[in-house]
Amino acid sequence: MPTDCIFCKIIAKEIPSDVVYADEYVTAFRDIQPAAPTHILIVPNKHIASINDLTEADAHLLGKMNFAAKQIAKAEGVDESGYRLIINTGADAGQIVFHIHMHLLAGKKLGRLG
Amino acid sequence: MPTDCIFCKIIAKEIPSDVVYADEYVTAFRDIQPAAPTHILIVPNKHIASINDLTEADAHLLGKMNFAAKQIAKAEGVDESGYRLIINTGADAGQIVFHIHMHLLAGKKLGRLG
Repeated sequence: MPTDCIFCKIIAKEIPSDVVYADEYVTAFRDIQPAAPTHILIVPNKHIASINDLTEADAHLLGKMNFAAKQIAKAEGVDESGYRLIINTGADAGQIVFHIHMHLLAGKKLGRLG
Repeated sequence: MPTDCIFCKIIAKEIPSDVVYADEYVTAFRDIQPAAPTHILIVPNKHIASINDLTEADAHLLGKMNFAAKQIAKAEGVDESGYRLIINTGADAGQIVFHIHMHLLAGKKLGRLG
């Protein structure tokens, strides 16, 4: 675990957060600067900096994250109205924290792609 | 395979498309209405309508899709500049085709979330 990774610290409960889901592979918590009425970050418990750093052996963790997203959407009551899942990699996408994270956005009509 | 699913027809090569990647689990092709200089759709070969319909047994396919995204980003020369991966579910997110698909967007400074 990198000592300076904020998401590793959240997973390790060294920094408080509003955790909505956690299991052996995945932790999910509310974004503190929400871009939609529902804005949750879903992260692998293992530190992986970005999709560029994803190995074939770790790829199944992205499956776990998507399955968690389904369950979280249902728990949040947005599964029927709809939700968007976003993973940003690198500067053009605006990735700020270099620990893979999936944004779950919902609760409003979401904008255009790109 | 639903007879009316356009993505199933693309996977089965019944409809032509600009395929950039294909393996046992995943097919990827260029979006015909690109929202960014690079806009590729990555789909599981198995028909799954949406993330709401994802089973735990099929979740690994989302891992395969993300690992394919990493490889495609590199092949497209956008791995260093950055890229955004988006999966839309339901009306609020603007899902139109009900076969899970991940948008890979790159080649420009991408906009805000949501």
